[in-house]
Formats: sequence, C-alpha cells, structure tokens
Amino acid sequence: MMKKITIGIIGLGTVGTGVMRILRSNSKIIRERLGAALSVKKIADLDIKSDRGIRLPKGILTKDAQEIINDPSIDVVVELIGGCEPAKTLLMGAMAEGKHVVTANKALLASHGIELLKAAHHAQVDIGFEASVAGGIPIIKARREGFAANRIRFILGILNGTANYILSTMTNEGGNFSDILKEAQRQGYAESDPVLDIEGLDTAHKLAILISMAYGTTITAEDIYTEGISHIEPLDIEFARELGYKIKLLAIAREIGSQIEARVHPTLIPHEHLLSKVDGTYNAIFLDGDAVGPSMFYGKGAGMMPSGGAVISDIIDIARNILTGTSNRVPFFSHQPEYLRKIIIKNIKEIETRYYLRFSVDDRPGVLSKLSGILGKHNISIHSVIQKGRRNKGGVSIFLLTHESREAALRKALDHIDHLSLTRAKTMVIRIEDQI
Amino acid sequence: MMKKITIGIIGLGTVGTGVMRILRSNSKIIRERLGAALSVKKIADLDIKSDRGIRLPKGILTKDAQEIINDPSIDVVVELIGGCEPAKTLLMGAMAEGKHVVTANKALLASHGIELLKAAHHAQVDIGFEASVAGGIPIIKARREGFAANRIRFILGILNGTANYILSTMTNEGGNFSDILKEAQRQGYAESDPVLDIEGLDTAHKLAILISMAYGTTITAEDIYTEGISHIEPLDIEFARELGYKIKLLAIAREIGSQIEARVHPTLIPHEHLLSKVDGTYNAIFLDGDAVGPSMFYGKGAGMMPSGGAVISDIIDIARNILTGTSNRVPFFSHQPEYLRKIIIKNIKEIETRYYLRFSVDDRPGVLSKLSGILGKHNISIHSVIQKGRRNKGGVSIFLLTHESREAALRKALDHIDHLSLTRAKTMVIRIEDQI
Repeated sequence: MMKKITIGIIGLGTVGTGVMRILRSNSKIIRERLGAALSVKKIADLDIKSDRGIRLPKGILTKDAQEIINDPSIDVVVELIGGCEPAKTLLMGAMAEGKHVVTANKALLASHGIELLKAAHHAQVDIGFEASVAGGIPIIKARREGFAANRIRFILGILNGTANYILSTMTNEGGNFSDILKEAQRQGYAESDPVLDIEGLDTAHKLAILISMAYGTTITAEDIYTEGISHIEPLDIEFARELGYKIKLLAIAREIGSQIEARVHPTLIPHEHLLSKVDGTYNAIFLDGDAVGPSMFYGKGAGMMPSGGAVISDIIDIARNILTGTSNRVPFFSHQPEYLRKIIIKNIKEIETRYYLRFSVDDRPGVLSKLSGILGKHNISIHSVIQKGRRNKGGVSIFLLTHESREAALRKALDHIDHLSLTRAKTMVIRIEDQI
Repeated sequence: MMKKITIGIIGLGTVGTGVMRILRSNSKIIRERLGAALSVKKIADLDIKSDRGIRLPKGILTKDAQEIINDPSIDVVVELIGGCEPAKTLLMGAMAEGKHVVTANKALLASHGIELLKAAHHAQVDIGFEASVAGGIPIIKARREGFAANRIRFILGILNGTANYILSTMTNEGGNFSDILKEAQRQGYAESDPVLDIEGLDTAHKLAILISMAYGTTITAEDIYTEGISHIEPLDIEFARELGYKIKLLAIAREIGSQIEARVHPTLIPHEHLLSKVDGTYNAIFLDGDAVGPSMFYGKGAGMMPSGGAVISDIIDIARNILTGTSNRVPFFSHQPEYLRKIIIKNIKEIETRYYLRFSVDDRPGVLSKLSGILGKHNISIHSVIQKGRRNKGGVSIFLLTHESREAALRKALDHIDHLSLTRAKTMVIRIEDQI
C-alpha cells in the first residue's frame, strides 16, 4: 500500500489555496516522485464560509487551529497565517507535539528565527521555509545545499514584487509613484496597506533570512539599514536612464573583511546588468560565491501558485526525511547550531559606495561651484555633473555622480548643502552598485 | 571528536584540482555547515608528476584507481575522468563495494544512466551528478527538489559555454565563426577538438539528463535532434539583430500533449528576453513549471572552481545522508524507479515553430515571387520578408520569417527551392522561439 504523509494547514488564504490546488492537480506526479501520497486531513481558518474556488472534502475545515496541533495522526503542520502571533505560538505548539512544520512567514523568521530553531532542535523536527523568501525561487535550497561549498561574497536581491512592479512601471511606462501605486492596488499587485512593501521592510525581513543563512548567524530586520522607494521621482528614473542605469529596490549583503554590509534601499544599477532586466512583480537574487562566481536566480516572488509550490517542495523534503527516518539533515541557518556566530553589521555611515545626487537649487550663477566646493571639502570626489536647466519646484535640478565616497562624509556635506539658502529642497541621494 | 567523511578522487584534471582547492580554502566553513570534516584519502591519476599548482599530502596520489575502490575506509568515490570507459567500470565497481559515488560525467549519464541507477539502487548507495549539467548552477537540485511539486512545461537551456562564447562574440564584437573559434582555443575557452561543443552533442547530453529528470524517464542523447553552430554566418547574426533577435545554441524540451519535444539547435530568441543577456561562457536554464511559472537560473557552466564547488555540494549531500543514516532519499531521475516511464519524443519533422530563412539566390526579377509561390504551395505562410540586395556569393540574400509552420512541410519546400537553378547555395534555416 502507498505510504501516506498526513498534513494539517493553518490559514487558507492565497498561498493555502495554492497548496490545495497543486496537491489536487499534481497529486499523481508528486506521488511518483516522492513514493508516498500527501494527504491534507485538516485545514484551520477563521473564515470557513468563503468560496475560494476550490472543492474541499466535507468536514476538512475547522476554526480551531488547536485541533490540528492535537491530532496525533498529522505529521506536518503548515502555517500560512503570517504575522508573529498567533503564528509563533501555533508553530511552537506543533513542534512540541513532535510535528514537523512548514511556514512562509518571513516576519516571524526574521524576528524569532533563533527560537524556532531551538524548538525544532529540541523536538528533533524539521522546519521548512522555502516560501518565505522569493516565493517561487528555491533560493533557500540553492544557498544551503547547492552552494554549501561556497563562501558568499555578496548578495543583491530584488525581493519585493510590489516595489519592483512600481519601479519597473515608472521606468518602462512613465508616471509618478503615487498614481502607479494606486493602479497597482486596483489590479491587486499592491496591498491596501502597502507600507511594508514600499518602505522596504518586507525586503529587510527577507534579507535578514538570507544573511543568517549565508553567514551562519541570526540577524533580524532591525539590524538592517532600510530605505523605501516612495520618494523616488520620475526625474530620477529618467536621469538614471540617461546615465545608463535603472533604479531598483535592492537588498544588499556583502562581506567586507570581518564585517557584513546589510542594507535595503533604492539603487542605481547598470542598464546592461541582468538584474536590470528583472521587471514587474518578478524577483531575482544575484549572488557571488567564491567557488561558483556570479550566479542569478529569477522567478515569481509571490502568488498563489509559485508560493504554494514552494510550500509543497518543503513538505516533500520533510516527507523524504520521514520516509527515510531522519530529521535535521540540513541545518536551519545553514551552519550547525554550535557554529552560529555573531556578526558585526557595518554601520551605514561607514560604507563606501558611489552616489547619485540630485540637488534642487536656485537657478543662479555660482551655484555649482558652491556645491562642488562643499563636496570637495568633505572629500567627496565628483565623477560627473550635469546641469540641464530642468525646472524643478521653481529652481533647477543639478545631477551629480560621485566617485566612491564614505557615507559619513557625504552626510556631513549634504547636511551643509541642505541648509544653504540657495537650496530649495532636500537633496535626493541614491546609492549606486556598479562593481557587479 | 569531529566526524569525518573519507573521499577518494579518480581523475585530477581541472575539476579535480578545483575540488582540492576548495576543500583546502573552505574546509572550516564546510565543517561548520556539515558538522563533519571532508577528508580526501587517495587520488588516482595516470599522471602523478605534473604540478597542478596545489600542494598535496605526500603519498596521496596513485596511478591505480582500484586502490580507491578497494579501500574499505573510503565512503565516497568521486569520478572525474570523463568518457564512458573506464569511468563506468570504476563507478560500478565502487558501488558494488558499497561506496557512494559522485560524477560530473554527462556523456556517461546520458548514455548509461539507467544502469548506474540500477546499480546504485541495488547497492543502496547514492549517486551525485550536480556538476554534469551547467557546472556551477544547482539545476539538478532545483529541479528534483525545489520544483518537486511542478509539472515542467518547457525547458530552454544555454548549456555549452564554448558555443555560447563563440555566438556572443560574433554578436557583440563581430567576426566569423572559424576565426573566433581559433581565438577561443588560444584563450582556453574551447578544446583543441571542439566538435562535441560546437556541434551540439555536449548540449544534447545535458538535455538528455534534464529531460530524464523533468519527465521521469531515461532518454539518451541519440533521441535528441541535434544541430551545431558552425554553419552560422555573420550575416545571420546581423540580420537577426535587425529583426530584434539574438542567435543562441538552445537545448529545448517541451511537453506537447503526450509527447515531448527534444531538440538542440541554433535558435533566434527575442533580444529583450533574459536568455539573450546570457553572454560569454555563462550558462542558463529558463524553465516554466505549472505552479512556479517562468524561472531562470544563471551562472558559470564549467571551470575548475564552479564545477569543483558543485562536486563538493554533492559530497556534502551524500555526507548528510551518511551522517543521518539514510540513502536514496531523492530518486535519481526525479521519479521513483517503479514510476519511470517511456516517453515519446516528437519527431523533428512533426514540430511546429517559426523559422528564419536566408535564401542565396540570383539577383534577377521574379525570384521572390518564385520563392513565395513554392512556400505557399507547402502551406508555409510568410510573416515578413526583406531583400536588401546584399551580395552573397555573387547573388543576393533574401531574409524571410515564417509564421508557425510544420517542419516536414518546410523541408519539402526547401528541398524544392534548393534545387532551383536560381538558387546559389543551400538555404539557411534557423528556428525561432518567441512564445517565451
């Protein structure tokens, strides 16, 4: 008789519905690959009435997640409700009952990963979280297993589909941020409360998970310097293009000596770079390993089916462990728990990079000389400068690219410049990545 | 005391040297991730004298591969000599001795995969072969595990670095095939005997492995229609560019009803497609899964360090199985052996696709009407045609793109056209992929 792995799902939203759809449409192929059947016994959701467009066996739905945790026949509990509580309590409870768990909950992993890890270790169960970062892209598996022999030199990620959709649309079709955001909300590409996406916090959660895995540590999103994209203007998109760049919201991690750079912000990247071609709601992770060299993974970052498929790949991985009688085969944060270490995140003021600056200043003689004088005094060396007489808020915009400079020095220079009487608005600063 | 996994390596060429280098430079990080040390006890190579730029422990080298197979303390045997024999006999012998094996040998896997699979199953040992397809890209792991819940709709691969280097150079810098091949040989990007690479056979080996894994079957390279790139002329590169395409040597697999298309040939792909940006010796696999949608993996396809890293990722995977007391956790060809099936490969004459045609014909009135008349008679419908009066071998070139047509019909039409007295050279045919 075909063996069976029994599953309980907590949360029947978009991803949960995707899981049920794929388990139905691809059950035969999954059985043939795994050598066992995946069988969902119970689904807990507070809403047991809505039609989600899928047929569910009678009686499978319950409002009480505890029913799943207490059911001794359930092998794997899948948590898809998101947010820290009650998700954390439910996962802890499931593990305490000896159940393996799968979650797509990046906020929880980024904040409480170490507690989950300890609980899993204690209970000798597995935690799958492939869907938490870049939904359809198997980056967790690629990083922890495929690149297990590599020291990771840097990671550049486009990890939020909403932000990438808005920036790509601004770039490819024109328009300003708020109009495109509204249209994205109307089309379902952005949440009604988009702040986590557009202010970079969702990206920071995912970067925290990637860094923890890449460097055998446990950092949280709070350790990551984070800027969003809501202040980017069409002027910046347009000028970046003229200079041969595109603007993307990037998650950046880089090993610099004994420290790690960890930051999320809009970034100018060269137009010909592969990451520049990642448009719409797609995600990509570009990374450089010391053995493998530059590599990129591209795919859907979220959505019913891509994330649903990632959740099932985790279930299959765990099922393979169950069927062969093992667990904790691959360590949670890539390193064995006893080798997890504290890393020093480089203070944003200490990073050195190139900058795009847009000054909004009075349209009168001597302005450029004044600006460059102040930059020079702070050791900010100018790569190129263009003043096109574009009118902006009654003045002109001056666009300037710097050579590699120290952020602390740049901030001091801009603090000075932004308080000049000739300055009409705060200077726009966008960091550049072009050594990639 | 730290646990130890003992390794024997057969073949100390480029990849073997890479394995030794990485094991030396990254031994600490590998130990921290795996929770055990990887220790190479013996290396067999017929050449035990050459300096490979690495320091080897005294006495580790032997000319006799059998020493490795007979050593009861060796857990994993790594075969890196390539070719079918003696590689196959050595791998079979190692498995018969209960040793797990790792190989990068695509020719062997593509021709004798099923025998290796049976031997591994019988001996209850694992076979790792991540390095056999697209060296640095963990596509085997991504496909078998990351996309385990997906039915694969199509795969498009740039799988040979030499061919891609030549085509990219023709495209980006100009020049003809044979000059660039010579330069590539001088620079070490092409072998002194390049036929496997430029005639598509190496790509066909890799596609056979990808198809076997994607569809739970065992096909060989002989089942795959294969064309190389040596006949591509600068004229074609240039004209493709004008039409918005690049020419790449693609490995193509596609599920069409109950049949599978499997072919390797130069292909026009749209200039804006991500695969068009894969230049130089890089490889990429673009695939479409029914849950995940379009995805792409990009990275180095070969070389000392990328392939060496892939071999070590396989060793680590096997070591994890050894440490947790399991084997055969993930089935060799993605499906459990009892569910492997025969698939029907679509005959190349039955495929339907769009074509780029370049006719070399006399420069006289009525030629185009003659050509289009013959195409029309065979139901080949013309999308666009350009006659620029370019002189080619004393006549003119006429470039033509067809709508979707049946290959058999096209061949009949061209057979007719190529025998006309106005035709000066065989018509150049390049298939187009633009529904991607």
